Amino acid sequence: MTSIVEQKLKTMGIVLPEPAVPAAAYVPYTISGRQVIISGQLPMKDGKPQGVGKVGGEVSVEQAQEIARLCGLNVLAHLKTACGGNLDRVRKCLRLGVFVHSTPEFTEQPKVANGVSEMMLQLFGEAGKHARAAVGVAQLPFGVAVEVEALFEIE
Amino acid sequence: MTSIVEQKLKTMGIVLPEPAVPAAAYVPYTISGRQVIISGQLPMKDGKPQGVGKVGGEVSVEQAQEIARLCGLNVLAHLKTACGGNLDRVRKCLRLGVFVHSTPEFTEQPKVANGVSEMMLQLFGEAGKHARAAVGVAQLPFGVAVEVEALFEIE
Amino acid sequence: MTSIVEQKLKTMGIVLPEPAVPAAAYVPYTISGRQVIISGQLPMKDGKPQGVGKVGGEVSVEQAQEIARLCGLNVLAHLKTACGGNLDRVRKCLRLGVFVHSTPEFTEQPKVANGVSEMMLQLFGEAGKHARAAVGVAQLPFGVAVEVEALFEIE
Repeated sequence: MTSIVEQKLKTMGIVLPEPAVPAAAYVPYTISGRQVIISGQLPMKDGKPQGVGKVGGEVSVEQAQEIARLCGLNVLAHLKTACGGNLDRVRKCLRLGVFVHSTPEFTEQPKVANGVSEMMLQLFGEAGKHARAAVGVAQLPFGVAVEVEALFEIE
Repeated sequence: MTSIVEQKLKTMGIVLPEPAVPAAAYVPYTISGRQVIISGQLPMKDGKPQGVGKVGGEVSVEQAQEIARLCGLNVLAHLKTACGGNLDRVRKCLRLGVFVHSTPEFTEQPKVANGVSEMMLQLFGEAGKHARAAVGVAQLPFGVAVEVEALFEIE
Repeated sequence: MTSIVEQKLKTMGIVLPEPAVPAAAYVPYTISGRQVIISGQLPMKDGKPQGVGKVGGEVSVEQAQEIARLCGLNVLAHLKTACGGNLDRVRKCLRLGVFVHSTPEFTEQPKVANGVSEMMLQLFGEAGKHARAAVGVAQLPFGVAVEVEALFEIE
């Protein structure tokens, strides 16, 4: 039996990436009680960072939204592992932290973050409604445009 | 019957703003067990962002403290909603995350963050003593000088 | 009886610093259920901030790793207090937030963050494996190169 969320992913045409190996000496997620804490995810695809550059400079808002979404797919890949393979165990997306690698003048971090927020809403419905902090940072690992960390509640 | 914290707000001459509508596809807060996770709040007043500019540049430390406090009022407005209107249900301010939109040379983020920290202490007393991270970021939504996210424990 | 973690610290040649007094109107940690939330720690030594400068500029990756480790020692000093002096009560390092004061071109934040991540692994073993977010920020308090905040689970 395929899980409901998996079917939704299929309908949305989404194939989750292989869970990316952390860039360093840490793990992709930890669990505390019912909370799953997901490490800051980069826009990895086939094991390689995508979407390098400063938003407001060489990276447009539209491109950055796609990059944020790709970070979100990596979040989901690890979340699935944390749920023992069954995303229907997700009860709530509690928080997304969205770090946008910005030029000193770029101020549309919320629009960029919507790239991942809207995917969570679409995928989980009411349970996908999350708190969020979106800020503009000076740089990110590998120079990528967006990094997303997340907190979920699972059954 | 007015709540004790509401009376304190009155004594402090504080009128909470209307809870600001999130700038994008997320919600102002989520609840997990006894924890209330408040989204990053901007210095909104009458639905408009205030306090635009870089601290250390066109925005002074004193101005930034006021701006941080205004972010805190928006935190409290949402917290009140999360508490079903009764701020006396707040058991503990667990953490504030303070993002200060800084020039590359500005290093007094803690002083800026005190603008909101001291209000929490004054308002909630012992329960207002919180952990905190204050950092200087490259930019913030709408170009505002400060963004504050928060974590509370409620009954 | 010396705790197991204390013996490990001794073996590693680590002397924990005196818990640093917060730079401002907040507290070093709060406790919520089994979670200990540690405030953003600067690289304090003998009450003074060390390791000032931008990583990728005047501060090298190797120096920044040492600075990150020093932030981690300050995390541990407060964690010990939170545990009533017994670090064997630590069940899990849940999350580290590592803010690296970066030049606009520096992209090796994960390497820098390893300075503190590897110490946690070495010290706590399996329980030291944590989720992490590492980002490059424009500035930090006192101009230090690294700030580390942390979330632990204790018994």
